This record gives sequence, structure tokens and C-alpha cells, in this order.
Amino acid sequence: MSKQPVRLTLAADLDDCRVPLIKEPLSAGQAERLAPSFKALGDPVRLRLLSLIASHEGGQACVCDLTDAFEVSAPTISHHLKVLKESGLVASERRGTWVYYRAEPAALELLSTVLSVPQGAAA
Amino acid sequence: MSKQPVRLTLAADLDDCRVPLIKEPLSAGQAERLAPSFKALGDPVRLRLLSLIASHEGGQACVCDLTDAFEVSAPTISHHLKVLKESGLVASERRGTWVYYRAEPAALELLSTVLSVPQGAAA
Repeated sequence: MSKQPVRLTLAADLDDCRVPLIKEPLSAGQAERLAPSFKALGDPVRLRLLSLIASHEGGQACVCDLTDAFEVSAPTISHHLKVLKESGLVASERRGTWVYYRAEPAALELLSTVLSVPQGAAA
Repeated sequence: MSKQPVRLTLAADLDDCRVPLIKEPLSAGQAERLAPSFKALGDPVRLRLLSLIASHEGGQACVCDLTDAFEVSAPTISHHLKVLKESGLVASERRGTWVYYRAEPAALELLSTVLSVPQGAAA
């Protein structure tokens, strides 16, 4: 049996967290579920990988498009892609020889909403 | 001499990062500067602390308002507040006996923009 991913549909899993944290206090449960996604973003190589994938034509990129952009080893890239995938920020699909990654815009948008500052809330 | 905080004005320091990562690839430099802020958010206690402070009346809270909400020790709360402060997400001010923390809405908004999905960009 293959290992289960930590989560598959971040946006669905976090649907009750779709509230700016500046508006009302996060519950312990919401914070527990949101933190791993922010932790996944808390690494410069992962942030760049996510941005490369998300901004790539069609919102997806072959792993062969990604490795050349970094001065780190292919296994390191693979590790970071796995973390992004497990956090629900990207999804992957094998096509022939290559694995293709696509960003999950709904997950990005949800995290963006959590950090958003509704008009009038800023000092 | 007191220790220098890592950065004081996150929003100013990251002003050139105010672009959705889905729109164009982050540079290595931008990713290096953004990652610590997301890392600071990657812990459930810190996320809840930030949300408690940001959503508190007037966007600020006394440290005495914060410790009661958590089942962790006061030194642990202090440590997490320090990380949030060093990442530029909150600022603090001593008034008499107590230290008051306030959220930095400009920093939150900047990170929210980085993760935002412009209309039409989502699949």
C-alpha cells in the first residue's frame, strides 16, 4: 500500500477557516489545520517552486522545468515538492516519463483570505 | 547593548514583493525575505496569538490578555511573541507593568497579496 498523503483537498479541509484572522480569533482547531500550510510556505526554495509552478503557462509545470532553476540537487527539489503536495498547495500527475505539478489556486486564495485586512480594519 | 531585532518594518522591507506569486515567479531574493514571515505563521500557537492580538479591540492586546487563552507556559508565549515580533507581524510597547502587542496590518496585507489569486488566474 502506498503512503497516504497528509491531505488532498486543502481548501475543502479548511473551508471553515475562510475568515480574516484580524476579524475574529482563530480557534485552536483552525490554527492547527492552517499552520502546516504556512509552514510549507516558510522555506525560500518551496516558495519559489510554488511560484514557478503557479505562474507557469497553464498553471502547471513539468518537474523537468523546475530543477534547472535551482542550485540544489534534484532529490532536494523532490523533497520540497512532496512537502508542497502534502500541504495541499500543489497537486501532481504523471504523464509518461515526467511528473507535472499544478498549483491549487483555491488553497492559495483561502490562505490569502486568512491574512487579508478588510477595509477599515487597518490602523 | 540590546540585541537588534531581525527586522522592524516588514512591509517596507518587502515592498518589492507585493505581487501575487501566481502572477510571476518570485526571485531568489524575494523568496528569502518572504519565507521567514510564513515560517512565523507556521505554528498553531503563533497563528492564534496573532489572531487574538489582531482581532482584539483596537488591534492591540496586553500580554496579560493573551496568556490566559493558552494551555502553554508564559515563557512559551513570550518566545512565540518574540518570533512574531522579529518577523515584523506584530510590534510591542511597554506601558507601566505590562507589554502591549499590536498587529501590523500592512505586513498581513502584503503577505495576503503574495498569496492572492487575481480574477481569471484560478483554474
